Amino acid sequence: MAQLRAFESAAKKGHEMPEIVCYEKQDDWGGQWNFTWRTGTDQYGEPVHTSMYRNLWSNGPKEGLEFAEYTFDEHFGRPVSSYPPREALWDYIAGRAEKSDVKKFVKFAHAVRWVDFDENTRTFTVNVENLRTGETEANEFDHVIVASGHFTFPNVPHFEGIDTFPGQIVHAHEFRGAEALADKDVLLIGASYSAEDIGTQAFKMGARSVTFSYRSAPMGFDWPEGMEEQPLVEKFDGNTAHFSNGLQRKFDAVVLCTGYIHHYPFLPESLSLDSPNNVYPDNLYRGVVWEKNNQMFYLGAQDQWFTFNMFDAQAWYVRDVILGERELPSKEEQRKSIDAWLERFDKLDSMEDQVDFQGAYVRDLIEQTDYPMFDLDTVCGIFKEWIQSKRDDILNYRDVTYTSVMTGTRAAQHHTPWMLELDDSLERYLSTPERDDARDVFEGREPATKRN
Amino acid sequence: MAQLRAFESAAKKGHEMPEIVCYEKQDDWGGQWNFTWRTGTDQYGEPVHTSMYRNLWSNGPKEGLEFAEYTFDEHFGRPVSSYPPREALWDYIAGRAEKSDVKKFVKFAHAVRWVDFDENTRTFTVNVENLRTGETEANEFDHVIVASGHFTFPNVPHFEGIDTFPGQIVHAHEFRGAEALADKDVLLIGASYSAEDIGTQAFKMGARSVTFSYRSAPMGFDWPEGMEEQPLVEKFDGNTAHFSNGLQRKFDAVVLCTGYIHHYPFLPESLSLDSPNNVYPDNLYRGVVWEKNNQMFYLGAQDQWFTFNMFDAQAWYVRDVILGERELPSKEEQRKSIDAWLERFDKLDSMEDQVDFQGAYVRDLIEQTDYPMFDLDTVCGIFKEWIQSKRDDILNYRDVTYTSVMTGTRAAQHHTPWMLELDDSLERYLSTPERDDARDVFEGREPATKRN
Repeated sequence: MAQLRAFESAAKKGHEMPEIVCYEKQDDWGGQWNFTWRTGTDQYGEPVHTSMYRNLWSNGPKEGLEFAEYTFDEHFGRPVSSYPPREALWDYIAGRAEKSDVKKFVKFAHAVRWVDFDENTRTFTVNVENLRTGETEANEFDHVIVASGHFTFPNVPHFEGIDTFPGQIVHAHEFRGAEALADKDVLLIGASYSAEDIGTQAFKMGARSVTFSYRSAPMGFDWPEGMEEQPLVEKFDGNTAHFSNGLQRKFDAVVLCTGYIHHYPFLPESLSLDSPNNVYPDNLYRGVVWEKNNQMFYLGAQDQWFTFNMFDAQAWYVRDVILGERELPSKEEQRKSIDAWLERFDKLDSMEDQVDFQGAYVRDLIEQTDYPMFDLDTVCGIFKEWIQSKRDDILNYRDVTYTSVMTGTRAAQHHTPWMLELDDSLERYLSTPERDDARDVFEGREPATKRN
Repeated sequence: MAQLRAFESAAKKGHEMPEIVCYEKQDDWGGQWNFTWRTGTDQYGEPVHTSMYRNLWSNGPKEGLEFAEYTFDEHFGRPVSSYPPREALWDYIAGRAEKSDVKKFVKFAHAVRWVDFDENTRTFTVNVENLRTGETEANEFDHVIVASGHFTFPNVPHFEGIDTFPGQIVHAHEFRGAEALADKDVLLIGASYSAEDIGTQAFKMGARSVTFSYRSAPMGFDWPEGMEEQPLVEKFDGNTAHFSNGLQRKFDAVVLCTGYIHHYPFLPESLSLDSPNNVYPDNLYRGVVWEKNNQMFYLGAQDQWFTFNMFDAQAWYVRDVILGERELPSKEEQRKSIDAWLERFDKLDSMEDQVDFQGAYVRDLIEQTDYPMFDLDTVCGIFKEWIQSKRDDILNYRDVTYTSVMTGTRAAQHHTPWMLELDDSLERYLSTPERDDARDVFEGREPATKRN
């Protein structure tokens, strides 16, 4: 969506539009944010793309991801809270895209099957299937942009005896809601965002106990009674997990929060990014140009602090390269640039460092393009406050509000504390319900109905 | 496995072996029978192949699927029961294959990405990825045999409101065991083998209630108290399902037993079979030769009464076509043959008819090859007895025994009635435990320990 918007933005300024086709295997756009109840494979037999669950809310402040050229104020017409639910974020990105007429470039329900590059003609052949009709076509392109993301194919390690576990085992990718975890003893394997958020959701929905298992280090949050961290599970024996510290505990359900893999089944090895999930994958000049073939690009291949606005910066830059507005340096210079970033990357040793690193990366990109520069230092500061707010209160950090660097608007306080909000719909989010007793109690006041 | 064995059998009789490569995306062979606890995508990011669950037992008598050239007696060295558990059947097919040295032809953890056919050179280019290394290769072949099956990619219809259902929703493909359904109200959508068997498993494992929902017709078995059939679910509203007869009922879990689709994401449309699941898919001469390109073959593309021995008959025939032992008739004759079978197929109107139809199909194939002919009429009779035995007693039909047409051996009675057998392992299956009280009670006798 960012790439289409980038080309359209240039066209509006008088640039000639290249011939563009966007193949999207889903029936609608929005990528991760295009929620589905489906898991495994979809109605066409394709692996389900999204890793969203029903009750997902943004786990980072919206002030860190806001588009510089389409603000939350513009979209919603009034201040909203800093941590919108899934539907509100989808609405925001779809709203930006709908403002333009770029949907006409998208062929929905089209799966790219296989991409080949011909060294002689310097063109790509893209084999694609129309999933609705079964028709397949081979089309030629001068450039290919991979924007399929890398939080879709789960990394699923094996654990001894896990095949004897009688309860439900899902990877975070297939997790769709925490309601069914009420009254359950839940084990989450992993120590990153998925574990933290799904564990919190399970707790919110009434899980009897929430146990996290970490491989290298615990998340270390100040968990409430009923939530705790343990080291690695070494094996399962029926419903009993054996931890490396000798603890044995029975569980009803296991959620594997073990991350995702870069996986591009439509690409030959020569074009396929192979990287752990980090903020500077190797072999991408400026984080987007495939070093081994400069006609090929990746968007969003990094681990992400910045998201929507970083994708924009990348898309604007890739657009300018393709339009010939920005010349690429020699392969040698590209390597030097990548190495310089990798050197800097190697020295990062805190989350705060990573934030600053990605801020610098985004700045570097925006400086190459006409994408509106924004106050990146302040946004980095917001991310650091966010990190701290989670350390302060992991269950309630979503009740904090931040100020947009795009508009100067202070986020609204959501009408209901997140831990009490059981309705994740956009309708509820935008409503103004009566202040209820639960909130008063939550905030340590006498309930309003008693006071009246 | 059947195809490799077929070629080896010819080689042993002095035929020259063609150059053979078998690409298998899993780490081991056995296809469906290669059980994994994984669901969704596997450790390589590929869609999981198998639809097996932990506690699956054969749902048809083994006397209907026995290889003509490798019997159960030969494999186990003694009579076993007519309905072996998953592990025993895997052991049997692997045992047959291990007897030969065909494993060397298999490249495991290799996913076929894309197959192209060049009309000029009349060769296939097969793009394949080594999943362990990420290496991709394009190799040329004169013939391609698709043996990836069609019970792997779930058919998953949408139901209004299903995204609001708070409990677990899985398709039969992702179902791995019924233990977690104990004390649950379970809804199974579908009226075929998956529904029948998973529903029965759920009942066996102590589900509070089992409700089947059918689209066109109920299965009509004589269900016990606690199991029942209802017409189609029209919508969900939270955990409440609304049936087309007005019934509303709350459920804890939904299992979609809605079948599978033919799905060959590695094939262009011109080579890709597109068919509902039936006993005679169109466009396959003798059920195996791709009519539009006679260098291409499908094994097991039919719905199946016969299985392992039918795959053998198909593989032996395909082998002879490839070796030039059997000449294919003109395209016109092929079409005539297909039409004749389709005409016969159109007239089938009972399960018993389908059995006879497939018996005739297998006979036709075996008559073309040197695969050992066996008493197909008697096997058809066994299938019909099986169908009747399910009508008589759907919970206990696996306690019936049949006589092998290959060896004349009457199957052994399993030491424990199926409804009481909670250990599905091969070890338990082959053991000879003391006769226990539960069995006596089940069979209406005074418990042995009381009698002593």
